[in-house]
Amino acid sequence: METVRPLVGIIGGVGPSAGLDFMRNIFANTRAVKDQDHIDSVLISCPALIPDRTEFLLNEGKPGYENPAYGMFECAKRLYRTGARYISVACNTAHADHIFTPFRALVEDSLPGVIIINILETCASHAKETGAKRVGLLATRGTYKSRVYHEYFTAEAGFVLYEPDADAQGKIHAAIYSEDFGIKAHPDPVTAKAKTILKDEIARLAGQGAEALILGCTELPLAINPSDSPLPLLDPALLSARRLIRLSSPEKLIP
Amino acid sequence: METVRPLVGIIGGVGPSAGLDFMRNIFANTRAVKDQDHIDSVLISCPALIPDRTEFLLNEGKPGYENPAYGMFECAKRLYRTGARYISVACNTAHADHIFTPFRALVEDSLPGVIIINILETCASHAKETGAKRVGLLATRGTYKSRVYHEYFTAEAGFVLYEPDADAQGKIHAAIYSEDFGIKAHPDPVTAKAKTILKDEIARLAGQGAEALILGCTELPLAINPSDSPLPLLDPALLSARRLIRLSSPEKLIP
Repeated sequence: METVRPLVGIIGGVGPSAGLDFMRNIFANTRAVKDQDHIDSVLISCPALIPDRTEFLLNEGKPGYENPAYGMFECAKRLYRTGARYISVACNTAHADHIFTPFRALVEDSLPGVIIINILETCASHAKETGAKRVGLLATRGTYKSRVYHEYFTAEAGFVLYEPDADAQGKIHAAIYSEDFGIKAHPDPVTAKAKTILKDEIARLAGQGAEALILGCTELPLAINPSDSPLPLLDPALLSARRLIRLSSPEKLIP
Repeated sequence: METVRPLVGIIGGVGPSAGLDFMRNIFANTRAVKDQDHIDSVLISCPALIPDRTEFLLNEGKPGYENPAYGMFECAKRLYRTGARYISVACNTAHADHIFTPFRALVEDSLPGVIIINILETCASHAKETGAKRVGLLATRGTYKSRVYHEYFTAEAGFVLYEPDADAQGKIHAAIYSEDFGIKAHPDPVTAKAKTILKDEIARLAGQGAEALILGCTELPLAINPSDSPLPLLDPALLSARRLIRLSSPEKLIP
């Protein structure tokens, strides 16, 4: 009879740096004066198990494009064996309905007692609480195309999503994916070129009337700080890290 | 029939940031242009299971001071269940003989197929390969006091460890721990004051004849780059991350 305190588990690797950033958010938002005050957590990074989410959404149904839900579920099973019961996936695009719904079903069928914290649902709830309705979105091309944020920031809930035009979306995508200067290939430090592209697009969305800005790709917080943005930032990973701490050890959440 | 590729497992939480930094070293030293190129890895951070290592070493045998080896072993068991087979502990002081030897024995008795990469042994082997014998040590007061580096950089192996005097050790400790200017409180950017203290001590150790410099605290690589030091740097976490990649996926190690 094990009486293990439930761990917070993060499915990372999608990409690897985003997983680290999620864990960093957990540590940075925990009230701790010594190591032992930190909450129990585990990060699994098995990116080879999880095909590219965007590629899947753009090619769903074609042969050779497996649903990333299965690899995410394999990671969830491994986390479960460590004692993890509060689980989040550190990837926005993975929250598209066609991926996240089968993932959630697999977890609910096989891993009793797990609570999944959906990072986009958390983000939309937070935006609603702050009163922001016109919300700008910085994301990868796949995320725009997947319309995953529209599934959560719905018109029914009063949201208007501001998206950059196709040309700007291409630039933002490059700022994330370019092998030469993108954040995925150059996360530490982020290149000046990537940073400039992103700051220009934020300024444009603010000029169009956006009241808040979603950092809609887990790589973006590596490049954009609050001081880089004239708009309040909505970072799904940061908001979800705080929610996971609140679930696991509410007394330890930094205000 | 599972044919799981062995994962790299890191016992973190000691402290939490050191665990993250270890994972960051793994990712940064892996040849990867897309997420899926990264190696499978897992970080467990259960700091409440692992008492303070320095406190234990200074009070061994007194009631109330449990050997951190047991908590480290509990973490290793959990990592094992995820498929981890190459395991390191992201804490210098945890490698003191009175902690690491019982930890290793527990793992060897119960977790077949696990290879433990000892980060201090790795650091000493690397120093030996480079031909450095007179080695300076920058560390926290607890690490100096524990004399854990003397267990690996032994006189029998031809090493001479250069340690700063008590006064200088106090300054280095402050450069790491001071709330006003220390690296733990101000990691990004590191303060000029912390950096100056450390560079002065490196210069002094070099002047005394040190041929290489151990970054014997996981905060130090945030402040000291190769360009800041007239001496080659020995970073146990970085060297061990590279050794873990070499074990797991040798073709992916960045030269």
